[in-house]
Amino acid sequence: MSGNSIGQNFVVTSFGESHGPALGCIVDGCPPGLELTEADMQRDLDRRRPGTSRYTTARREPDEVKILSGVFEGKTTGTSIGLLIQNTDQRSQDYSNIKDLFRPGHADYTYQQKYGTRDYRGGGRSSARETAMRVAAGAIAKKYLFQHFGIEIRGYLSQLGPVIAEQVDWDEIERNDFFFPDASKIPALDEYMRELKKSGDSIGAKVSVVATNVPVGLGEPVFDRLDADIAHALMGINAVKGVEIGDGFAVVTQHGSEHRDLMSPAGFESNHAGGVLGGISSGQPVVAHIAMKPTSSISVPGKSMTVQGDEVEMVTKGRHDPCVGIRAVPIAEAMLAIVLMDHLLRHRAQNLDVVSPTPVLGMR
Amino acid sequence: MSGNSIGQNFVVTSFGESHGPALGCIVDGCPPGLELTEADMQRDLDRRRPGTSRYTTARREPDEVKILSGVFEGKTTGTSIGLLIQNTDQRSQDYSNIKDLFRPGHADYTYQQKYGTRDYRGGGRSSARETAMRVAAGAIAKKYLFQHFGIEIRGYLSQLGPVIAEQVDWDEIERNDFFFPDASKIPALDEYMRELKKSGDSIGAKVSVVATNVPVGLGEPVFDRLDADIAHALMGINAVKGVEIGDGFAVVTQHGSEHRDLMSPAGFESNHAGGVLGGISSGQPVVAHIAMKPTSSISVPGKSMTVQGDEVEMVTKGRHDPCVGIRAVPIAEAMLAIVLMDHLLRHRAQNLDVVSPTPVLGMR
Amino acid sequence: MSGNSIGQNFVVTSFGESHGPALGCIVDGCPPGLELTEADMQRDLDRRRPGTSRYTTARREPDEVKILSGVFEGKTTGTSIGLLIQNTDQRSQDYSNIKDLFRPGHADYTYQQKYGTRDYRGGGRSSARETAMRVAAGAIAKKYLFQHFGIEIRGYLSQLGPVIAEQVDWDEIERNDFFFPDASKIPALDEYMRELKKSGDSIGAKVSVVATNVPVGLGEPVFDRLDADIAHALMGINAVKGVEIGDGFAVVTQHGSEHRDLMSPAGFESNHAGGVLGGISSGQPVVAHIAMKPTSSISVPGKSMTVQGDEVEMVTKGRHDPCVGIRAVPIAEAMLAIVLMDHLLRHRAQNLDVVSPTPVLGMR
Amino acid sequence: MSGNSIGQNFVVTSFGESHGPALGCIVDGCPPGLELTEADMQRDLDRRRPGTSRYTTARREPDEVKILSGVFEGKTTGTSIGLLIQNTDQRSQDYSNIKDLFRPGHADYTYQQKYGTRDYRGGGRSSARETAMRVAAGAIAKKYLFQHFGIEIRGYLSQLGPVIAEQVDWDEIERNDFFFPDASKIPALDEYMRELKKSGDSIGAKVSVVATNVPVGLGEPVFDRLDADIAHALMGINAVKGVEIGDGFAVVTQHGSEHRDLMSPAGFESNHAGGVLGGISSGQPVVAHIAMKPTSSISVPGKSMTVQGDEVEMVTKGRHDPCVGIRAVPIAEAMLAIVLMDHLLRHRAQNLDVVSPTPVLGMR
Repeated sequence: MSGNSIGQNFVVTSFGESHGPALGCIVDGCPPGLELTEADMQRDLDRRRPGTSRYTTARREPDEVKILSGVFEGKTTGTSIGLLIQNTDQRSQDYSNIKDLFRPGHADYTYQQKYGTRDYRGGGRSSARETAMRVAAGAIAKKYLFQHFGIEIRGYLSQLGPVIAEQVDWDEIERNDFFFPDASKIPALDEYMRELKKSGDSIGAKVSVVATNVPVGLGEPVFDRLDADIAHALMGINAVKGVEIGDGFAVVTQHGSEHRDLMSPAGFESNHAGGVLGGISSGQPVVAHIAMKPTSSISVPGKSMTVQGDEVEMVTKGRHDPCVGIRAVPIAEAMLAIVLMDHLLRHRAQNLDVVSPTPVLGMR
Repeated sequence: MSGNSIGQNFVVTSFGESHGPALGCIVDGCPPGLELTEADMQRDLDRRRPGTSRYTTARREPDEVKILSGVFEGKTTGTSIGLLIQNTDQRSQDYSNIKDLFRPGHADYTYQQKYGTRDYRGGGRSSARETAMRVAAGAIAKKYLFQHFGIEIRGYLSQLGPVIAEQVDWDEIERNDFFFPDASKIPALDEYMRELKKSGDSIGAKVSVVATNVPVGLGEPVFDRLDADIAHALMGINAVKGVEIGDGFAVVTQHGSEHRDLMSPAGFESNHAGGVLGGISSGQPVVAHIAMKPTSSISVPGKSMTVQGDEVEMVTKGRHDPCVGIRAVPIAEAMLAIVLMDHLLRHRAQNLDVVSPTPVLGMR
Repeated sequence: MSGNSIGQNFVVTSFGESHGPALGCIVDGCPPGLELTEADMQRDLDRRRPGTSRYTTARREPDEVKILSGVFEGKTTGTSIGLLIQNTDQRSQDYSNIKDLFRPGHADYTYQQKYGTRDYRGGGRSSARETAMRVAAGAIAKKYLFQHFGIEIRGYLSQLGPVIAEQVDWDEIERNDFFFPDASKIPALDEYMRELKKSGDSIGAKVSVVATNVPVGLGEPVFDRLDADIAHALMGINAVKGVEIGDGFAVVTQHGSEHRDLMSPAGFESNHAGGVLGGISSGQPVVAHIAMKPTSSISVPGKSMTVQGDEVEMVTKGRHDPCVGIRAVPIAEAMLAIVLMDHLLRHRAQNLDVVSPTPVLGMR
Repeated sequence: MSGNSIGQNFVVTSFGESHGPALGCIVDGCPPGLELTEADMQRDLDRRRPGTSRYTTARREPDEVKILSGVFEGKTTGTSIGLLIQNTDQRSQDYSNIKDLFRPGHADYTYQQKYGTRDYRGGGRSSARETAMRVAAGAIAKKYLFQHFGIEIRGYLSQLGPVIAEQVDWDEIERNDFFFPDASKIPALDEYMRELKKSGDSIGAKVSVVATNVPVGLGEPVFDRLDADIAHALMGINAVKGVEIGDGFAVVTQHGSEHRDLMSPAGFESNHAGGVLGGISSGQPVVAHIAMKPTSSISVPGKSMTVQGDEVEMVTKGRHDPCVGIRAVPIAEAMLAIVLMDHLLRHRAQNLDVVSPTPVLGMR
């Protein structure tokens, strides 16, 4: 299979460039009988959508998704689901100046070298605009997982540059412009972003995503472990440079007596594992974190070269997010949903029962 | 495809339990004409092999690999390569006591819940013994990549608990028992491990792996990006809880002006990206880091439960590595080799040329 | 991977129902640099299009395909190609009467039983309307294969009920309404079809498809042999009940001395093999034949049952081809093109050279 | 995935050459809890085994299969099953004379051209010896399908050259040397084969295979239809040149009123479809036929060429079956079992129920 598909039994295949006529995807393997309308996807699309906050790109796209197949009389039929989003605000004239330039930190150089050509308008296929389709497909998975198993998947911005969330208030997340779970830090965030915009620079971020009520037993060792497939899906989001499950890199200095989650018939006593043991879900919440690099589209000048091989000093113009991590929250949720959905179906493919989650003591 | 295969065009499929009669794998897609003998794999198998150092398990396995097919008159033929390693030191009697117990932090609980049964002898399929086959398969990829493209893949232990490598001396790595690249820290490591063994506890570690001379252009956006597939392969190693590419989680606090690698016709000026831009190799060295959790097999007692649901306090006996990160070095190298090999073939499948690496200025 | 994709390195994934808003597909893995416009696909779409002849369905669809991605400045870029065809002549009212009926010989019963629901409008996903996308995707493969390797793929109707083509005149095929290669039989065909329409019945057919200039070496034994993948692709066309390679079922009564194609340095002396030996293309033309069943949509009454389980006598109304074999010609060509393209790329994935075809003596 | 694997959720991957040390395969995706011993596979291996009848090759192989993993305490565990058969009667000296020759009708030419090399000993990977592993893997599928769903898969030789079975007596099949279901024709067969051996020539054959009690609903349109995947699996058997489902090529001259299987609440009235409608199993028995070419290994001299490009007249020596169709019966059964098993698991992967077979009236 070529690189524009993800999943084995719940398969999402996508197409579309930043400045082409449309984006689309095909979702194959969704069980029949799921009630599905465009509105189910629109909510998450709106959360990811550009132009909704002061701190994201000024590009304005309604991101209206259309269902073209696979749904009949309001329910999925078991056949492949075709989804389409028209691009409306393309402004290709903005980008003609970069036709012959490799923007530093961007995929211009690698696409050009790999394919011998590239759609330079807005980054073409390498633009994060492509992730709109992931969000749409992920919304289908989210709905199925919640309706059939009560699985809930939620993400938040856990860190933006120096500003760290010190508490996770799930209700706070959708109240601010940052998907930030710690209300006490919002003024600091606002202040930080204001200064950042002035400097013309960008900043990295950390996004966390949690799935609760995950059944025990999802994951296909030894290569397609649940954590391995989560890592694949999350590292495959634009700008991600690191993925952690549970305690992640903190384990490097942990002792075994500290890391292992003790258990009793009542449940686990902790969740250092992040919900995966031996590559199989343990029934604890599945917890993952990702590191998002600062966008390279900044107004600070930088040395680069032209396609023709000449040295050049350049500034990346255009409409860009100073912190791409913010809008990555719904994308990370979508990717986790797609992986869990796929693994649920792969588990069922072995004719195995779905085993209820295991409680983690002291967690609501 | 079920979970015991990895790769699309260079496919490794494995079988075997810790205490079964043998381990094996099939390598499918290796181009013909590669000179290959058992000795090519044995070197890396010996590096991973248990029983070679004071600080690893006392289990003694020669790990002698046999080529059963796919090689004729000393060269690969293009047909599938069958590899086999007999298990010799199985001692199943050591493990009968854990038949009805879920060892905390192990895969006992998740395998039992998923499959309704499990091979409890030495962890069965969930044992890291399975990684011997990955090392064997990876050695084939390593040899091909080096012979045809000069690609070199080397790993090291970059941190063990509190002890951090502060310099990377490639020659030092194979000289000590730890694959540690900083000779000045060996006494500290020895001391730390001695104390650890006394305590009966275990410790986490960080392993780094680097591929040099990687051509530009490997990686299949948007889902099978090179970094996404590396994350999949590395997170799929037993005990790994985190994967980083290039600067990894450090990007969270970086600015764009700091992170992006400037370039000129002479090459890149830095390698914060870790060799991947937009999911495609940039020609810089590919750099990845993984976090290895401390093994849960320790003599510190811990609360757990039986298969029957009774509470129990237990100590994990057996022959275990106090730091599984050490022996993970050759495994991480093997997995990176398998991913690069697969992507090289996927790149070729698009009838594309292989583009020479891009120098990083100031790097040898 | 779920069932709406075909291919490993050249992957076609499709969606769309007979009476939904649109059909579409994604072509993933097409090498960059191929000149491609809608017109390249339109020619074959027009050949397959309903409503073009007296002897095919009266449904009128322009089948205008739109390229939504993957092509930039007139050439493929190496990224996934999105294609879309709007449905215009849907007339759903025609089909409401079959909502609760299982038409005999149709997929109504099996879709309903499998999925517990079905889009009954015009057969939904099971309608041959879906094959429009195959023809579009196949046209891309055809163009690439011809431009890069001179491979030519052409089909014809070799038999319609009792009327058998006794000679193959390639120029005649596009001159008549039947894709029939034997001009001397056209009056007989016309006569036969006129009588058939009067009777309200339908008839089976045999379609042949030939690829010339196929390089030696395509095919991946032991399971993905070239002939096996051709059989998969052709048997997967609606209404096909048999597939032959080369001499096909005639081999049952052949002797080895008669069947084997002798060869000399000048080439093969015959082509009983149909261009495949040991699952790998031999450089002879690849020749395949398929058996197309008579459509079950006829005005001859037949016994069936309702979804509720009641017995019923019914007549299938609607706009149907009395011989679905006729319009299957461009579909068979498309499927063969897709398979050859995929195998060409799989062959390249092993870093292997493309070896020139082997002549068959006495063949032009 | 490269070409040595078959299946998506029940995946069989194989290796091994005719004259290498061993053959083996990995069966991935078998549900846990199936009782499995070597004896379950040995019965079918013995049916396929060379040297058991006057009319098959004189090579003597015990074909003793060993289970190396995936089974614990007599039951499958859900992990990958490793199987191994040692080659014992290799006689490589028999084959050195063909090192530089392309035997007409064999895969020597295509392997050499594709890979630039080949294991010439006994045909290497292209030898039908490889099918032993298919039979072993198929036996696992057969057992599961029968135990869980009562599905029974049986094959027979329906035609050998001019001798056609006119009745199918299931009990007769295992009583004669030919898997022939018509006792009245055994003397004619004996006579035919005696004459054939004298002539040094070989003959084609037709093999039929039937699965009864197949649930409704198996098959994944639009590309991985059940019939398409059966065609792939059966055309992938050595020497097969044609595949039919149900009435097969007879449909070319059938009318719709004749072909379609009428139905009532009591069941279907006939089975022209061969158990598949719209690519999905209908609950009728699944019926397939294959055409087996006559082996090209005959003592009738034939023109060919050397690897060096010289013309040569040659006779194929060695130990060969004069009719490879005979031993193909258990292989065809195995392949059908693997496909049904895979589709059963793919069906379950959509969280769908398994629907009972539909009776065919008048069939026992």
